[in-house]
Amino acid sequence: MYQCCHSKEYEKTVNSKYLHPVNETLSCLFCTTLSLPALPAYHFRFPREQQTLPNHFYFTDYERHNAEIAAFHLDKILGFRRAMPVTGRVLHLTKELYDIAEPELLKTFFISPAENYCFHGHCSYYCDTSHAVCGNPDKLEGSFAAFLPEKEVVGRTLRKHPWRRSYHKRRKALWETDPNYCDAVKISPPYNEGIILLDLIDTSIFDFISGNMDRHHFETYSIFNNDSFPIHLDHGRAFGKPFHDELSILAPLTQCCLIKQSTLLTLLSLHNGAKKLSDLMRESMADDPIMPILWEPYYPAMDRRVKIILEAVRGCILKSASESDAQSAPPTTGQGSKKPNSA
Amino acid sequence: MYQCCHSKEYEKTVNSKYLHPVNETLSCLFCTTLSLPALPAYHFRFPREQQTLPNHFYFTDYERHNAEIAAFHLDKILGFRRAMPVTGRVLHLTKELYDIAEPELLKTFFISPAENYCFHGHCSYYCDTSHAVCGNPDKLEGSFAAFLPEKEVVGRTLRKHPWRRSYHKRRKALWETDPNYCDAVKISPPYNEGIILLDLIDTSIFDFISGNMDRHHFETYSIFNNDSFPIHLDHGRAFGKPFHDELSILAPLTQCCLIKQSTLLTLLSLHNGAKKLSDLMRESMADDPIMPILWEPYYPAMDRRVKIILEAVRGCILKSASESDAQSAPPTTGQGSKKPNSA
Repeated sequence: MYQCCHSKEYEKTVNSKYLHPVNETLSCLFCTTLSLPALPAYHFRFPREQQTLPNHFYFTDYERHNAEIAAFHLDKILGFRRAMPVTGRVLHLTKELYDIAEPELLKTFFISPAENYCFHGHCSYYCDTSHAVCGNPDKLEGSFAAFLPEKEVVGRTLRKHPWRRSYHKRRKALWETDPNYCDAVKISPPYNEGIILLDLIDTSIFDFISGNMDRHHFETYSIFNNDSFPIHLDHGRAFGKPFHDELSILAPLTQCCLIKQSTLLTLLSLHNGAKKLSDLMRESMADDPIMPILWEPYYPAMDRRVKIILEAVRGCILKSASESDAQSAPPTTGQGSKKPNSA
Repeated sequence: MYQCCHSKEYEKTVNSKYLHPVNETLSCLFCTTLSLPALPAYHFRFPREQQTLPNHFYFTDYERHNAEIAAFHLDKILGFRRAMPVTGRVLHLTKELYDIAEPELLKTFFISPAENYCFHGHCSYYCDTSHAVCGNPDKLEGSFAAFLPEKEVVGRTLRKHPWRRSYHKRRKALWETDPNYCDAVKISPPYNEGIILLDLIDTSIFDFISGNMDRHHFETYSIFNNDSFPIHLDHGRAFGKPFHDELSILAPLTQCCLIKQSTLLTLLSLHNGAKKLSDLMRESMADDPIMPILWEPYYPAMDRRVKIILEAVRGCILKSASESDAQSAPPTTGQGSKKPNSA
């Protein structure tokens, strides 16, 4: 038995999972009522070419179900294997939701003026008729992720990301104004030993390529203490700006000037190899039931961002020519050590 | 001294008017802080071709500042003269709002990721960063309405519209299911005497042509008791569906089978005359500072709807050939008696 994501809400009864808040727990929408090993994520559905609205911040950006799918494939190709498998699927709102909904959820269903089936669930904000999920007329694309083991079975530790953003429209986080921020992180537990800092730099590379600015927390499996990896969860706000490369996402890399050797080799292979990252992403996502997953401009964007990361690494090398060019991490089993083509 | 609209919020202090709820009182946004005899209405700005979202109800539709402008011109051309003059204008968020804002309002201002000036005010729902008003970078189109006399000077009576909708995603109003609904209205005060019922039928004609389903209340000047007209206020949800004629808006006409002679003559003139309604609307709005005000498909829609109204009148005549074809109202001074070309 698995659970779908990392929210407390998700541990409530089956139907209560539909009564969702529209935040990071939203990816729990639908889940186990369907007795599926997977879940569709987010309300609203946008066409693939819908970009983040220019006046929206990372924390007011809409969630994109296709971004969850693409992020899983990207994580796999980068060799991290820290994201749960996600697939697209067309859901039938009537037989897969309406027919089994309990009264509390049922009363949020309605037929829209365009005669589509819609529902909105319950939550503290944005769960209302104007922010509903609507089918066409009852068919709805979703992204479905494999469930993580239940927290009662395999506990997880939740930590604030040291490079988290302010989540405020005017305030900046400390790391955005302090160029020496990494020095403080490096000497603070748990980042002062093991590979967790290098893992977070991997995550920043993953997030930079996907354009995800919404990495506020991270979770690890508690039983491994600090000898574990950050699970890559919640990527609905990735893949929103194909024409803008958000360099601040790379701050863990550029401020610490650290990168795993295995990750660097992977990036070099994706840049110089026979197949670029965009080629591998196309191949990997080709069989998804709701392909195409990404709008075309994201493919050159991913290749361009690989190059930007390598340039950032080169900048670190130039800045500190006397230090080793790239700090090797101790070899790990399965984490971050795979070549792209072995994914 | 005038006030801008009909909400209690509006009678608060100048800056508090910016701390607005997103409902019918929203048209008070901006107002007297600018010491202008006019106000821009609504947050968000949409391109002219933005239609009501197909899954949105009349009560979840966005508000359109250009609809307020077009509605004023339509009301004038129809000869009703019950809407306050509204004009478009480009507002400078910095010098006209930011520079004079008080601290409570000021803290809702921010610079968006696209480097535009934005603010959202305070209210119970939807006044947040993701529903902000944003300039480009500080210029913002607005609709500005002349103020009505302050309520303390000229009091107004607020009444529920007898053909108001349910404002619920599943429930219907009584008039939607009872074909004899008008019989009950006709014998109920204040509709059982005077011209107020005929005035509301005028309003339904005005709303049908503009596609406004949001006529939940109406106000009259109290000093005139029932010998006054419903003021045409709040048209931000008109002009949202150019390709759909919402016949239910005409229910007061089709259920009562009553129409003022003057209104019928105006409609006949708009249908058969040298200039159609669309021609007169184009001429009337040509000088607005933010023209063009309406997307092209609304012009044929207005002419088509005039024809539909006349067909509805013909239907009434056929249905009750023994009754007078159209009930004449006692001549009124200035209200509903103007010819289109005299507007």
